[in-house]
Amino acid sequence: MNSTYEACIKACLECMEACNHCFDACLKEEDVQMMAECIRLDRECADICAFAAKALQTDSPFAKEICQLCADICEECGKECKKHHHSHCQKCAEACLKCAEICRNMAA
Amino acid sequence: MNSTYEACIKACLECMEACNHCFDACLKEEDVQMMAECIRLDRECADICAFAAKALQTDSPFAKEICQLCADICEECGKECKKHHHSHCQKCAEACLKCAEICRNMAA
Amino acid sequence: MNSTYEACIKACLECMEACNHCFDACLKEEDVQMMAECIRLDRECADICAFAAKALQTDSPFAKEICQLCADICEECGKECKKHHHSHCQKCAEACLKCAEICRNMAA
Amino acid sequence: MNSTYEACIKACLECMEACNHCFDACLKEEDVQMMAECIRLDRECADICAFAAKALQTDSPFAKEICQLCADICEECGKECKKHHHSHCQKCAEACLKCAEICRNMAA
Repeated sequence: MNSTYEACIKACLECMEACNHCFDACLKEEDVQMMAECIRLDRECADICAFAAKALQTDSPFAKEICQLCADICEECGKECKKHHHSHCQKCAEACLKCAEICRNMAA
Repeated sequence: MNSTYEACIKACLECMEACNHCFDACLKEEDVQMMAECIRLDRECADICAFAAKALQTDSPFAKEICQLCADICEECGKECKKHHHSHCQKCAEACLKCAEICRNMAA
Repeated sequence: MNSTYEACIKACLECMEACNHCFDACLKEEDVQMMAECIRLDRECADICAFAAKALQTDSPFAKEICQLCADICEECGKECKKHHHSHCQKCAEACLKCAEICRNMAA
Repeated sequence: MNSTYEACIKACLECMEACNHCFDACLKEEDVQMMAECIRLDRECADICAFAAKALQTDSPFAKEICQLCADICEECGKECKKHHHSHCQKCAEACLKCAEICRNMAA
């Protein structure tokens, strides 16, 4: 596996972890109401990141197309997370936006 | 595929649908706070149901063990959903408890 | 949920089942060698169909984009399956090409 | 997240990567026939490892039960991979058996 693939897998797995942790932490917040969109996107983003990692690890013929979709979802999730001051949201936003950029390069 | 497998796949896919629909509907409720545990279990239950359906469809050597785990998660999700009066929760509880029973029989 | 969504979920779940069954059956064929590409695409297609069904069931903001990707993978898997005379491949090709068309319409 | 969880997530993600890489490499081998059981178990093991990682990352109430199942599948996949001399199989066997042990401890 070349280093571009490896960097993209790493970014996807780190974003998956940040999103799953943020999903759990949002559900434990006092104001869950305000976190509803964050919870929804955390699930979706964690799942597409796992899917993209798998596609890269299996040398899928659709790796680029999947990374394109992953970049779009990561960007949306990152934007939503950035709105909230909780540290799990801020960390998640960072992981999402980094992953979006790396997936976007992979897809290009 | 024999009819026991087919019935179990059907129950898993119906439970997956009920849980995913309930997940979405809970996030749109006015009182999301009260639905936090339901949202968490809906995701987990929908995902294990999809996993169990795949195991049955691929004649996995771990089909029984996976159905055992699926039954446990379905039962917990069904109990939580039953507490809430929303029709999506009541429907979800019904699908979960039915799936738990069928998976329990498959695992036996 | 409206009827367009329901028809698309049904097509995805039927395609998932056909692909997972074909995956298992291909691994049990005498000439596995010839089925290698079919096995690879069956896994990928079954997984994206499960992913698309989940996106539709949760009213995902990315439902259309995910269905577009699903259509592309279904089409490729359907083309590959069509080359093989095994009945599981022919049935799978049919389910894939039907799902590709319905997902394509959903994405439009 | 405590260090036991972190170590278990790491082992699951490394095992997922080894299994997905082995799945791809087996499908590209000259003698695919001989690798059929390896291919089947690689898919199942990669998928349950991703599932277990998600459960740990979201602090799932079923984390232990899922790790128990993950340990069983990893062990079976590790045993199968160990039979084959290909370096991707040997590396996969190592990752599987390590993950099995760590998941077994988590489940205890």
